[in-house]
Amino acid sequence: MTFIDQLNAAWQKNNSLLCVGLDPDPAKFPGQLKGRDDAILEFCTAIVDATADLVCAFKPQIAYFAARRAEDQLEALIAHIHDRHPGIPVILDAKRGDIGSTAEQYAVEAFERFQADAVTVNPYMGRDSVEPYLAYPDKGVILLCRTSNAGGSDLQFLDVGGEKLYERVARLAASEWNRNGQISLVVGATFPAEIARVRELVGDMPLLVPGIGAQGGDIEATVNAGKTANSTGLMINSSRAILYAGKDADYTAAARKAAQDTRDAINLYR
Amino acid sequence: MTFIDQLNAAWQKNNSLLCVGLDPDPAKFPGQLKGRDDAILEFCTAIVDATADLVCAFKPQIAYFAARRAEDQLEALIAHIHDRHPGIPVILDAKRGDIGSTAEQYAVEAFERFQADAVTVNPYMGRDSVEPYLAYPDKGVILLCRTSNAGGSDLQFLDVGGEKLYERVARLAASEWNRNGQISLVVGATFPAEIARVRELVGDMPLLVPGIGAQGGDIEATVNAGKTANSTGLMINSSRAILYAGKDADYTAAARKAAQDTRDAINLYR
Repeated sequence: MTFIDQLNAAWQKNNSLLCVGLDPDPAKFPGQLKGRDDAILEFCTAIVDATADLVCAFKPQIAYFAARRAEDQLEALIAHIHDRHPGIPVILDAKRGDIGSTAEQYAVEAFERFQADAVTVNPYMGRDSVEPYLAYPDKGVILLCRTSNAGGSDLQFLDVGGEKLYERVARLAASEWNRNGQISLVVGATFPAEIARVRELVGDMPLLVPGIGAQGGDIEATVNAGKTANSTGLMINSSRAILYAGKDADYTAAARKAAQDTRDAINLYR
Repeated sequence: MTFIDQLNAAWQKNNSLLCVGLDPDPAKFPGQLKGRDDAILEFCTAIVDATADLVCAFKPQIAYFAARRAEDQLEALIAHIHDRHPGIPVILDAKRGDIGSTAEQYAVEAFERFQADAVTVNPYMGRDSVEPYLAYPDKGVILLCRTSNAGGSDLQFLDVGGEKLYERVARLAASEWNRNGQISLVVGATFPAEIARVRELVGDMPLLVPGIGAQGGDIEATVNAGKTANSTGLMINSSRAILYAGKDADYTAAARKAAQDTRDAINLYR
């Protein structure tokens, strides 16, 4: 199954547009995990097992693992998701961006070493920085388009001949760069009008939408702006609001409840 | 010493604008290293020891390590450079780009885990994606500006109100983003006129210039376009042409000769 096929199946099976972001910060872990060598893996697999029937994807953020020499735990986490929750795609949030043989190495990192189903990629270096990932026909490539941070406007909102830079990225990603339908886009939830504009430009291409929950994006506006005709098309990411919903012993139950509430809140507007 | 101070000192001490890029590809390693578990570290430290008096910086490319689960060898390599060749700055070529707490984790990865002196960063997400690296006052941040690949023009060469996007990046990097003088820029050697334009925009800011050697950039044109008034200001990167100059037993001597020839060719035009 390709990433897109898996995503379509997970949207249906779990009736969910929710993507749970796995950004493990040991300083926020419950007390019973403190000091354990495998705390990151233990925390993340517990969150995964508590929410897997409520999500359309999981999105581990590699920086949190790399900062702590925990690549082995990231490998084990993704293997765990594939093993215990087959059919739920894993997006490696790495935002890589390079060219030629270096980009090929990053593709090996994401798809062969970590066995991710999709990876986030930065478009600044252009089409040939995306192609090495597209060489894996089953995999997804999720390009940064319009990001939810304040500085996102510094470049992305510049006018490039009658459209904004992020609109140009969306058009390129939906046309000449996307020969085999493997590309999706990142569009932040803090700008619903821009989600709507991207949706207009890219047809039914999946959009990964960070920025709800801890980052304050509006669920109703996001879903209305971004859903496709069949009420899918979105991977709405929440990380901290789910991971750290509870403290100590109850953290998995609290995470499950937060995921369920978020999924249901999203589904109200589909 | 800050990254910039180290770079200035290395330019003078080694009379060199050459940066050796460490992109270890085991398929190209000499026969005597094949099959060794520590082949990447062994190869890279041998190259480093053979060229350290000829360079202004070393630039390991993290993708080559990450694709092979060799982060431990990257840590050991950088520790080796600091230990045996103090004063030669290490640029971690990672082209990271993210925001907030995630960017903080990437900064931990580059500066605390790997002990790099500088890191390459992608500017697409804007100013707040750069700031977490600038929070380390001794470290350098080298922003992608104009890259040497064909697709580099897809976005970087777009007109954004009377200037190209890469020119806007250069201006932002040289002014409001650069409060403490920590920023440098990546500008590819395949576009000497654009190196000259960036030099015009950024004053004496250091420029990291990939694209000579295997990628075909012209040394004379690059140096003339990019040097500062005191004939420095450039980190001219060569990777494959030096790493794989020789085969089998003679690879370190061949690498040294290639580095010396490249340094001297650069110095002809300073």
